[in-house]
Formats: sequence, structure tokens, C-alpha cells
Amino acid sequence: MIKRILFLLLIILPGLINSQNPDSVAVRKIFSETMMNGKAYDWLRDLTKNIGGRLSGTPQAAKAVEWAKQKMIEAGADSVWLQEVWVPYWVRGEKETGTIIESNGNKTNVPICALGLSVATPKEGITAQIVEINNFNELSRLGAEKVKGKIVFYNYPFDEKYINTFEAYGDAVQYRWAGPSEAAKYGAVATICRSMTNALDDDPHTGAMHYADTLPRIPCAAISTNAANLLSRIVKANEATKFFLKQSCHMQDSVKSYNVIGEIKGSQFPNEYVVVGGHLDSWDLAEGAHDDGAGVVQSIEMLRTIKSAGIKPLRTLRAIAFMNEESGLRGGRKYAEVAKEKNEKHVAAIESDAGGFMPTGFGLNMTDEQKAKVLSMTYLFKPYGMYSFSNEGDGADISKLENMNVARLGLEVVSQRYFDYHHSKSDTFDKVNKRELLLGAAAMTAMAYLLALHGL
Amino acid sequence: MIKRILFLLLIILPGLINSQNPDSVAVRKIFSETMMNGKAYDWLRDLTKNIGGRLSGTPQAAKAVEWAKQKMIEAGADSVWLQEVWVPYWVRGEKETGTIIESNGNKTNVPICALGLSVATPKEGITAQIVEINNFNELSRLGAEKVKGKIVFYNYPFDEKYINTFEAYGDAVQYRWAGPSEAAKYGAVATICRSMTNALDDDPHTGAMHYADTLPRIPCAAISTNAANLLSRIVKANEATKFFLKQSCHMQDSVKSYNVIGEIKGSQFPNEYVVVGGHLDSWDLAEGAHDDGAGVVQSIEMLRTIKSAGIKPLRTLRAIAFMNEESGLRGGRKYAEVAKEKNEKHVAAIESDAGGFMPTGFGLNMTDEQKAKVLSMTYLFKPYGMYSFSNEGDGADISKLENMNVARLGLEVVSQRYFDYHHSKSDTFDKVNKRELLLGAAAMTAMAYLLALHGL
Repeated sequence: MIKRILFLLLIILPGLINSQNPDSVAVRKIFSETMMNGKAYDWLRDLTKNIGGRLSGTPQAAKAVEWAKQKMIEAGADSVWLQEVWVPYWVRGEKETGTIIESNGNKTNVPICALGLSVATPKEGITAQIVEINNFNELSRLGAEKVKGKIVFYNYPFDEKYINTFEAYGDAVQYRWAGPSEAAKYGAVATICRSMTNALDDDPHTGAMHYADTLPRIPCAAISTNAANLLSRIVKANEATKFFLKQSCHMQDSVKSYNVIGEIKGSQFPNEYVVVGGHLDSWDLAEGAHDDGAGVVQSIEMLRTIKSAGIKPLRTLRAIAFMNEESGLRGGRKYAEVAKEKNEKHVAAIESDAGGFMPTGFGLNMTDEQKAKVLSMTYLFKPYGMYSFSNEGDGADISKLENMNVARLGLEVVSQRYFDYHHSKSDTFDKVNKRELLLGAAAMTAMAYLLALHGL
Repeated sequence: MIKRILFLLLIILPGLINSQNPDSVAVRKIFSETMMNGKAYDWLRDLTKNIGGRLSGTPQAAKAVEWAKQKMIEAGADSVWLQEVWVPYWVRGEKETGTIIESNGNKTNVPICALGLSVATPKEGITAQIVEINNFNELSRLGAEKVKGKIVFYNYPFDEKYINTFEAYGDAVQYRWAGPSEAAKYGAVATICRSMTNALDDDPHTGAMHYADTLPRIPCAAISTNAANLLSRIVKANEATKFFLKQSCHMQDSVKSYNVIGEIKGSQFPNEYVVVGGHLDSWDLAEGAHDDGAGVVQSIEMLRTIKSAGIKPLRTLRAIAFMNEESGLRGGRKYAEVAKEKNEKHVAAIESDAGGFMPTGFGLNMTDEQKAKVLSMTYLFKPYGMYSFSNEGDGADISKLENMNVARLGLEVVSQRYFDYHHSKSDTFDKVNKRELLLGAAAMTAMAYLLALHGL
């Protein structure tokens, strides 16, 4: 029991310590600098409005690489460099067509878009009977008899009971990611997937899918949630309903691209690293404001804030704009590979890839020992409304550092609006609030500063 | 020390208790019912789009009263009634004009609006030299010598270092509320006040002001933040700059209006009350979506959720749509008066008037004993992202219950976007996120349920 009490005290006591200790003063300084002088919001406007969508392999992505390098220099990094990454180049091609064909001949065009990495339909499109599937159990129950030659329509909605919308996404996204190959098992000719969003709207939401090696690669598209509801009503009323799908998306040869890295040298342990990052690529349909322009400008803001506040980090701080998170994760892999080759000692990596919303805490993915040390610092974040440190989420790009025993942290934010915009044309700059974006940047900067100071 | 440890344990232990206790099950049930079937968002669309702005005394406010009554009936209240309130009726009149007149003759019209309850200018308007004032100290230092006969321009910006924007508002709003009379002390002929917002935009933000009884009542207006920056640059370059102000706002006779009250009778203590409310009136410039249509529909949602979930509260639950929060607080006063007259035992009152954003906790304004009991329940809210229970904010309408020893709670929400919209034409339905609004409604419902069950 005494042990238990001591354990509890260890958790509570830091919160009772005089808030004027040097750490809290430094954190306050960081937040004030970012909130008063932060440039992240203006940078995000520039990135989204002047470059826009920047899918890996595209000229816009190449432009974004040069842009990020320039901004890291402006932010005051001691050094900035590009790390070569070869990325898949998937091209959407002509605007997709999706049409509901009722058995009375009525045709209704509906908003669809190809899922990322999908193959094309034949040039003339595919017309086939559509079968609505609510989950994989139902698919396997229906089996080849009911599915062969048809278009499978996955209509699995987000479960609104989840408070954190990332849990609803995690629950539903299997139908986007694995749905096409699952349907191909039973001879389906294509899949249409309800968009991954809480919103009821007319925008299809794209996102990556994955073909199993041993199964036919069938074309797959997302349909807007309003259209999914319409399609469901029509199919339920008449199971002979057909669907016409036409898309010309395809893979081209891989393209040389880059991670962009900016660094502020540590004064005492220059060869130990704390990394802060987001991903520079986005899907092609939108400006990629929340996903993940936000994470990129917040990471560059970390460099600017540290420099402008005159802070000298003990360990080296790096900001990284990763390439190709959305359609291959080659940037994250590459960074981890090189870090391992060079035997670089990474203390911790922090990623922001949940949108530029109000920060609420950090997900902690690390050993228990590392976690105990991070938890002892969390009291420093409570004055800034950040209380959530019990989840494990980190970030896709930094996840590849796992085998190097690097503590990984994911910036957690209020998640309610994220999937309204995610991977759709509505992920635009106007959805970002300046103060929320800057608070996230300050939180990452403060955490990076503390980890660079105290180590793990 | 042992006492201290025991105290700490009392605070922590509830969080460690098995989360499957009856309270947590009930809270989960409430959140699920609201998130799956809540109508608050659809109601808010109806209120804002079909009635719109509803300043006290206007026909729109009268329409809103009937609307709220109808919705409370639809929500399943056991009884619904109107409580008569006489309200001030302030009329904006013709669109205001504000013009910067440079000494070279250049004239620039800028976005302004009369502050709520301001008097008009003379019909032909006022033209006078403008003097920029950054705070009241500066005003008194300049004194009558520099201020007499001039228009005082209060250009006090929100301090972006405050994390909770309500603190920045609290710091700055004195220039809107008391600024006109302070300037009148020194013979100023009018005031122009920088809008109360973090945003840099072109919308003037109105809001109530207050004339001191003993001083001349001079006209006062708000100017958009972009225009305030422009005006400041011009005045700093040439102090002979003049300003032309014309507005025709005025008070009319008081109007009979109503608080709208809906009730679900308590099964065990029907004569003890837990109240949940928001205010039905809004300023005239906007739809009053966040301020405070949100609080009204959340309160009515409480009735619907309790009924639909089949919950029988032990004490009586009331939803109240208060009238006249913005321009007189007559509704809140009236409700408290009647409650006192009837000697109604109010256990607690909860208000939502900080916008329909992501809920983060409750402000607690009550005795230490009451607070200890509420704090013992806060662990129930952590699964829903609500951690903030250390502030004191409650709500203007329920503040009048103070002398009756009623525990008052204010729903706290993420505050970053609120003042971007507050009292300006941009406070519209599209700024509200459905899930954030419903989460706030569920949080209020859960807290009302717990207080009705356990008392205080």
C-alpha cells in the first residue's frame, strides 16, 4: 500500500511543485514567443494557396520540397538539407465517373473518387450489379455465389459513439484499405467504399488502399456519404440495381523526391537528436491544410521559435518535412534507414499528423522507463489545456524509428472536425484556426526542448 | 503528511475505481444517446437559418420564444411554460457610417457598428479629431486638455499570450463596456473601440456597453480589427486625422418577452431542481449560432436525451432558454427572483454560453463543500476528454442565483475560435461542428443527471 501511495505521489507531486521552476519558465517563454510572433499560419497559407495539393511524385510535391527548404532557412536553422527518397507516382487521371443505374433505367451520377493506388477500370468503364456489404463477416457469408461479377459497396459508417474520431476511423478504414482484395477473393469486379468521415456531405474522401499480392487487382473508389446513403436506399429497394464506374488512375515510374531536414545543433550533446516532424505530401484532391501542411509548418515553427526565443538546446533539434506519408511512407522509412546506418542516437521523435487543431496532449509510444520520465513533465503542459498523455498513438513517419528504441510521441488534438475534411477537397486553409495551429506548434516545441534538455 | 496523502488519494482514487460503476454506465448511456440520436444540431440550423438574429424586443426574439417552447415539447418535457420578462428594446437603426478623414482630404470608409445600448450621433453625424488611446492610464494622463471635443479611439488588442481567450476578452472588454463614460469624463464626443476579437478581419464586433449615470452619454461604435490597424497607422502618421461617425441607434419602450422553461419531474425529490440553460436572445448582426443558439439547443437536447434514454431523474430537471442576456440580463434576474419568491430549492444550475465547441470541463462557482462533491464526480468525464474543473466561470444568466446558495457550473469549451465570431456577422451555423455541439449537450446532460441523482 505504501508503495502504491508513493507511486501515486510520484505522479501527482510534480503538479504541486512551484510553477516558477526553470522548466515552466522556459515553456512559458516558448508559448509566448510562438503565440506572439509565430509564422506557422502565414506559412500554411502560402503552402496551401500557392502550391496546393502535393501528391508524391507530382511537380507540386517537388515545389513543396524547395519551399520547405527555404522556410527552414528563413526560420533560422543552423543547417538544412534534402534527403533523397524515391517515391511511387500514382496519377488520378481523368475525373472519375460513378453512376447508379436503376432497373427502370434511371441514371444518377454520384460523387466518387478513385482510392489512392487503385488501378483503373477498362477504358469503357465497368457496369455491374451492386451488392451492399456492411462488414467483412457479411461478405464472407454471402460468398462468391452472391458477389462474383458484381461491384461490392462497402457501406460501413463511422460509429458516432467513439469520442475520439480516430477510433471510428480505425474501426472503419479496413474497408478502404483491405476491402478491394477481400472482395476480389469472391470474384467482385470493383469496390465502392463509403467515405471515411463523420460528416454527411457530397465530397468523396480518398486515401490509400492496399492490394494483396495473390489476388486480382480490382478498381476501387470512394463515394460521398450522402451518395452512399442514397445508393443504400436504392439498393435496398431493388437489388437488381447496377453501378457504372469509370476511372483512369494508374502508377507511373517512381520519382526522385526528398525529405527536408533542418537542424539546430545541440550545445552539449550535438550527436543526440530530438526530431519534430510532419509530412509534406498530401492527397491531390485538396490543399492538404490539416493533413498535413499543419504538421510541416508547426515543425518549421519549432526551429523559428527556438531561435527567436534565444534558446540553446542541449541536444540537437531537427525539424523534418517527410515525403510520401500518404502513398507509400517512403520518407519515414528512408529517414529511419539513414539514422540507423549512421548510428545516430535519437532520443525522441514527435509527429503532428492529426490536424492543426487545439492540442490536448501527446500519445506516448515508448518503453515504460521512458514513459515515466515523460509523464513527470506533463504537469508543465496543463496550463496550456493539455491533459491527455495516456494514449499510444505516435505518427506514421516516425513509426519506422521503432527498432532503434526511439521514444515516439504523437501530438494529440481535438479530433472532432478532422475527418470532415480528411483526404477530401474540403481540407483547405480556411478550416485552420491560427491560434490552434500555433498552440500545437508551441506544444511540440516545448516538448522537444524539454526532451533535448533532460534526455530520456 | 499522512493527512495530505489521504487528501491526495481522495482526489485520485475515484479515477482508479472500476469504470463500470452505475454512474459511469449512466454517463456512457447519455453520451451514446446524444451522439447517435441528438437533434441539437438540426434545431440549431432551424433557429439560425429560419429565425436568425434575435435581439431582445424584436419580432425575431418573439418568434424564437415560440420556437423554443415548441422544441421543448417535441423533446418530451413533462411541462413547458413561459415566464414573463420585460426587456429593453434597443434598435440599431440605419447602417452606421465611419470614415477616416485625413488632413490631405482623403476619406476612407471603414467597417464599424454601434455598440449595443449606445445612443445615436446627431442626425448629421459627428466629425472630430481622433485620438488613439491604448489604455485608461494613458487616457487620464492625456486628460481633458488632449481629449475634449475629440473622438477617443480605444485600440487595445487581445493579448495573444493568454491561452484561454476568455481571459484576453476579460482583459480588453473594459474599453467597450466602460470606455465611453471614461472618455466622457474628459469631454470626448464619441468613442471608437477596437473589436473584441483575436481575429484580424473586416467585421466589427458589437456588444453591450454601459453609461455611468453621472456623465454625458456619448455615442460609441466598434471598428473591425483590420480597420483599427489602418486607423492607428494613419493617426500615428498625422495626429490631425479626423473621423466621421454617424449612427441612429436608440432605445424604444420596453417589450414584454419571456424565458422559456421545460421540465422533467424528479421521481423522488420533485421540488428540488437542477437547471440547465443558455440564452435565446442574440445580437442583431449575426445568426447567434455559437452565442448562444448553441447553449439553447444543448439545453433542450438535455430534455430529449433524458427522455429518449428512458432515464428517470431523482430531482427535477429544467431546461431554460433565458431572454435578454446580451442587452440587460433581465431573464436571468427574473428567473432568480421567481425562484426566490417561490422558495424553490435549486441544487445546481449549469450554463452553456461559451460557444458550441469541444467541451473541456466545467467552471465551478460554489462553496468548497459543494465543490468537493462535484470534484468527486469529475473522473466520470475524463473518458470524454473533459479534464478542466479548476476555473470559476459559470454563466451570466445563472449568476443571479448566487444569493440562493445554488451551485453554479459553466460548460467550458475550447475557446480558440469563439471571439473570431462573437457578436459579429460571422457567428453563423456553419461555424458549429455537429459532434462538438452534441458532446457539449451530452456533458451538460450527464452533469445534470449526476447532480439530480446525488444532490449537493
